[in-house]
Amino acid sequence: MKALEEKILKEGVILSEDILKVDGFLNHQIDVKFLKEIGKEFYRIFQDEGITKILTIEASGIAIACFTADAFDVNVVFAKKSLSSNIGNDVYTSVVHSYTHGTDYTVTVSKSYLHENDRVLIVDDFMANGKAVEGLIDICEQAHCTVKGVGICIEKSYQHGGENIRQKGIRVESLARIRSMKNNQIIFDQTR
Amino acid sequence: MKALEEKILKEGVILSEDILKVDGFLNHQIDVKFLKEIGKEFYRIFQDEGITKILTIEASGIAIACFTADAFDVNVVFAKKSLSSNIGNDVYTSVVHSYTHGTDYTVTVSKSYLHENDRVLIVDDFMANGKAVEGLIDICEQAHCTVKGVGICIEKSYQHGGENIRQKGIRVESLARIRSMKNNQIIFDQTR
Repeated sequence: MKALEEKILKEGVILSEDILKVDGFLNHQIDVKFLKEIGKEFYRIFQDEGITKILTIEASGIAIACFTADAFDVNVVFAKKSLSSNIGNDVYTSVVHSYTHGTDYTVTVSKSYLHENDRVLIVDDFMANGKAVEGLIDICEQAHCTVKGVGICIEKSYQHGGENIRQKGIRVESLARIRSMKNNQIIFDQTR
Repeated sequence: MKALEEKILKEGVILSEDILKVDGFLNHQIDVKFLKEIGKEFYRIFQDEGITKILTIEASGIAIACFTADAFDVNVVFAKKSLSSNIGNDVYTSVVHSYTHGTDYTVTVSKSYLHENDRVLIVDDFMANGKAVEGLIDICEQAHCTVKGVGICIEKSYQHGGENIRQKGIRVESLARIRSMKNNQIIFDQTR
């Protein structure tokens, strides 16, 4: 998505070879007009997949999921990272390793909101090693629903999360793919 | 908002005299069509306040903030509950006491995204003792911007958060106000 690449170049801040800060429009301040365009782009890409639900993980995925769901005219489910006091025990869980924080955490989705006939599009802001998305795929497998695709805003293609998930036969589409951030310069892979 | 009261009666689950579970449409699964109506209702109520930004707190407030911001055609800022690795040090913070968890946590907003001329509408899913919203008001005061209103989906009016904030001269409007959940029965206060 050319507009996203341009926005990253204009507004993104490279904090290190591995950390890109895009909190001016994507995951702290939310540029609503722009996220609506992202939602429409995911719809354009996945519109023939019969999507019935958008699944993401709190907190940064929620805004993207909302505007994507609006484009598809379906609902959102966001996985929780902590066991809230009232989610109940009737849940699917998956343990995710965070390389950023060097710890494991558990993602949780209530069994009430994923069904066998659901055709799920998973969306998130970033994908690096892909462990969070793998946790969501694991939860979908537990729920016997079908993951029809994974839509990522920014994939770090020099890490291998996207590759690993594509090898499972799951369609992963990223709107911008970063091959390198070395020398304070962003190099993108070609995207559709 | 009659539609919200009806939805609470139809889909909400009373877990105790104090805990109402509405995660089927508001804060785990998100009923996108319904949340768009909530956004429009907040616009109807606050449209004359010259709102320039919607402020909320992760994670449950984000979806509501997104659809409200869309109705106002402005951006969202969501406060973080944890210090993320790349938010930086140039931040406003406020310590919030959680009665639910019996602990304190810190809410954080980057200084880049709240400005002196901003006219802010704070939104959230629930208000009970109002401590989270007070934290956001504190952050707005640090940023010297103006809180033009607080929009809450479900206020527990038998607690006193809304009252305390109204006494500061800040306009608080709740779409549903619950006076009591005793005996497994929800009694609403009148709302506009």
